[in-house]
Amino acid sequence: MKTSPLAPTASPMLHPVPGLRLATAESGLKYQGRDDVMLMVADDIATVAGAVTRSKTCSAAVDWCKSVLAGGMARGVLVNAGNANAFTGQIGADSVAACAETMASTLDVAADQILLASTGVIGEPMDEGLILSHLPAMMTRLDGNAWGDAAKAIMTTDTFAKAASTQIELAGELITITGIAKGSGMIAPDMATMLAFIGTDAVISAGDLAAMTSAVTDQSFNAITVDGDTSTSDTVVVMATGRTGSLLAGDDLIAFQSALLAIMEDLAQLIVRDGEGASKFITITVTGAEDDAAARRIGLAIGNSPLVKTAIAGEDANWGRVVMAVGKSGEAADRDRLKISIGGVLIAADGQRIADYDEAPVAAHMKGQEINIDVDLGLGTGRARVWSCDLTHGYIEINADYRS
Amino acid sequence: MKTSPLAPTASPMLHPVPGLRLATAESGLKYQGRDDVMLMVADDIATVAGAVTRSKTCSAAVDWCKSVLAGGMARGVLVNAGNANAFTGQIGADSVAACAETMASTLDVAADQILLASTGVIGEPMDEGLILSHLPAMMTRLDGNAWGDAAKAIMTTDTFAKAASTQIELAGELITITGIAKGSGMIAPDMATMLAFIGTDAVISAGDLAAMTSAVTDQSFNAITVDGDTSTSDTVVVMATGRTGSLLAGDDLIAFQSALLAIMEDLAQLIVRDGEGASKFITITVTGAEDDAAARRIGLAIGNSPLVKTAIAGEDANWGRVVMAVGKSGEAADRDRLKISIGGVLIAADGQRIADYDEAPVAAHMKGQEINIDVDLGLGTGRARVWSCDLTHGYIEINADYRS
Repeated sequence: MKTSPLAPTASPMLHPVPGLRLATAESGLKYQGRDDVMLMVADDIATVAGAVTRSKTCSAAVDWCKSVLAGGMARGVLVNAGNANAFTGQIGADSVAACAETMASTLDVAADQILLASTGVIGEPMDEGLILSHLPAMMTRLDGNAWGDAAKAIMTTDTFAKAASTQIELAGELITITGIAKGSGMIAPDMATMLAFIGTDAVISAGDLAAMTSAVTDQSFNAITVDGDTSTSDTVVVMATGRTGSLLAGDDLIAFQSALLAIMEDLAQLIVRDGEGASKFITITVTGAEDDAAARRIGLAIGNSPLVKTAIAGEDANWGRVVMAVGKSGEAADRDRLKISIGGVLIAADGQRIADYDEAPVAAHMKGQEINIDVDLGLGTGRARVWSCDLTHGYIEINADYRS
Repeated sequence: MKTSPLAPTASPMLHPVPGLRLATAESGLKYQGRDDVMLMVADDIATVAGAVTRSKTCSAAVDWCKSVLAGGMARGVLVNAGNANAFTGQIGADSVAACAETMASTLDVAADQILLASTGVIGEPMDEGLILSHLPAMMTRLDGNAWGDAAKAIMTTDTFAKAASTQIELAGELITITGIAKGSGMIAPDMATMLAFIGTDAVISAGDLAAMTSAVTDQSFNAITVDGDTSTSDTVVVMATGRTGSLLAGDDLIAFQSALLAIMEDLAQLIVRDGEGASKFITITVTGAEDDAAARRIGLAIGNSPLVKTAIAGEDANWGRVVMAVGKSGEAADRDRLKISIGGVLIAADGQRIADYDEAPVAAHMKGQEINIDVDLGLGTGRARVWSCDLTHGYIEINADYRS
């Protein structure tokens, strides 16, 4: 598959996270000639938090993760691509238990210290033996520098690997945050996400990490959409190895949360940039809504609208479709207070197109790859940013043929 | 534009409705060489009911119709295609008032007896003079047999005209119901609909007609989706001229409601069959939900899913995507009680694919134009039917290029 035209041109430097190592393997579950299993192991028990899909038809692995995440502690994560092990009944649940128990005994910990994630086709029983047979060899290959290989191993319809990394100094200590993600289609907001695995060596309490992960997930992975469809398998995991020494608190905790949000936003935006068939990256900024949640839902109504997305694919500054999407969002809106700008140019206000509207600069903006839509509701102080991509022939080509 | 492959092969016989006459004209507002204005006039004051879009950014004509419909009585309907007169501010409201007042004075009635509808591009001020200059000539051409021409005059991206007609005998009297509709894109459910104008010579109270129109709209126009996008201009109007003599009540009222529902279902299904780019007509039947409203929302989650719609375009029996859509609907669902059938063949039950599933008959069904998906939740007695179409390259072609 051709690499997305929105793919980043340079690979980011991925800082190893003290206390975390990774390995990959080729299972033969589905793909040929590429690794499709990923193992992430903490040297000691790590603080963990996460978010999983709110789908009522979630996968067996998601069911498993819910109870592990509730405990706030974990040693390892085992991920496979090519089979979602979703809607696979008791066979699927047995397969998940076998994976967790085998990996736990390899690490000599309890099974509830192991997180699992699977992504790929729904409804096909999964032969976990193909995965587990590689565990012993993978354990010998664990490497703190394997984040790039790990990002590749979890891909399905992704056209490029997704990773982000940062370092911040807090209270005189250098703290690292590095993460990987996958996702390209069946990406929708307001439930949870796709797959993302983030590590840090920060010392942070399980409660702080859980609260923070929930908040930043809402502002990053829950603020993106490719097609409005929500996976059965979405999982975000943040593991903190605590190797940096002092417990984060106060302003340091806030600074760490900002850094974690920046990494999650990077990863979330990379997923949109690899949206199936995407040729344009859309940033929707909503202000003046009743509250932040209303702003996000309005942003998502715009970002999910097939008519807005196809207009952008056609480089058409069809702002009337933005009006339509605001109107259908179900949120409070007053037609006569609404302001709409595209590419920074005010187009509509006071219930109509502005008197001296000049389409030329907006038309030029539409020809670019980065499209900005700003909507002000004029009602309150609620604000949100949402990221989406356009809807092109590529999306149809990928999804009318590929059984994912 | 090529006629939809799902278009009906024969035109239905359209019975004139005693007391209702129609005329059309070419305004020059947008289209060349075709009529784009439609007038429907009752010989005497008629009972009227309707439904309009719940969009927060509704058009000026929709605002106008809300107050007229609240009165339950009307003499005429004036409709134009090519300009939606939506998001046009005070200019738009003035234009609507001018249309209603001019038509009212032509008919020698009050302006609040006139219904208006506009469909087309959003945000362009409309030159109503182009429409009004044709009113006198249209009044001289009013004809009870002009339903077919009227159906053509209200088309925008529609590839065929949509009409339905029936006659039923109630209490020894023959009652006629004839209706027309337009719609092809920006079609979404759960708000109101597109444009539909239905006439009958039944004698019915304004209260009964309003209650019945609301109920059958929910089961017809509110049960279809093309792209999940809701228009600023959706309007359904039912006019009853009362020419048949005796007031409907009791069983006759129920029988009339069934006949009206059948006409509305026909019109709603014709809109889906003309869905932008559609190559397959999808009927989704949901049973066993908590209640009927939950069943309809689950049906619409399936019918709106880009991944389900592209799988059907690709003739892929990808039932896992149906599982996904049920899971994301937000309605109560139990993965392990869910049953999914395609083309009448049971595929999944008890939280997994059935043991002896044979994909061959399902694959054959997917090659047809009429696709049936049945979902049973196993929770309650709620049921609903929803109609949708597939998502093809045609949708992208139409909407990336056409400013509608």
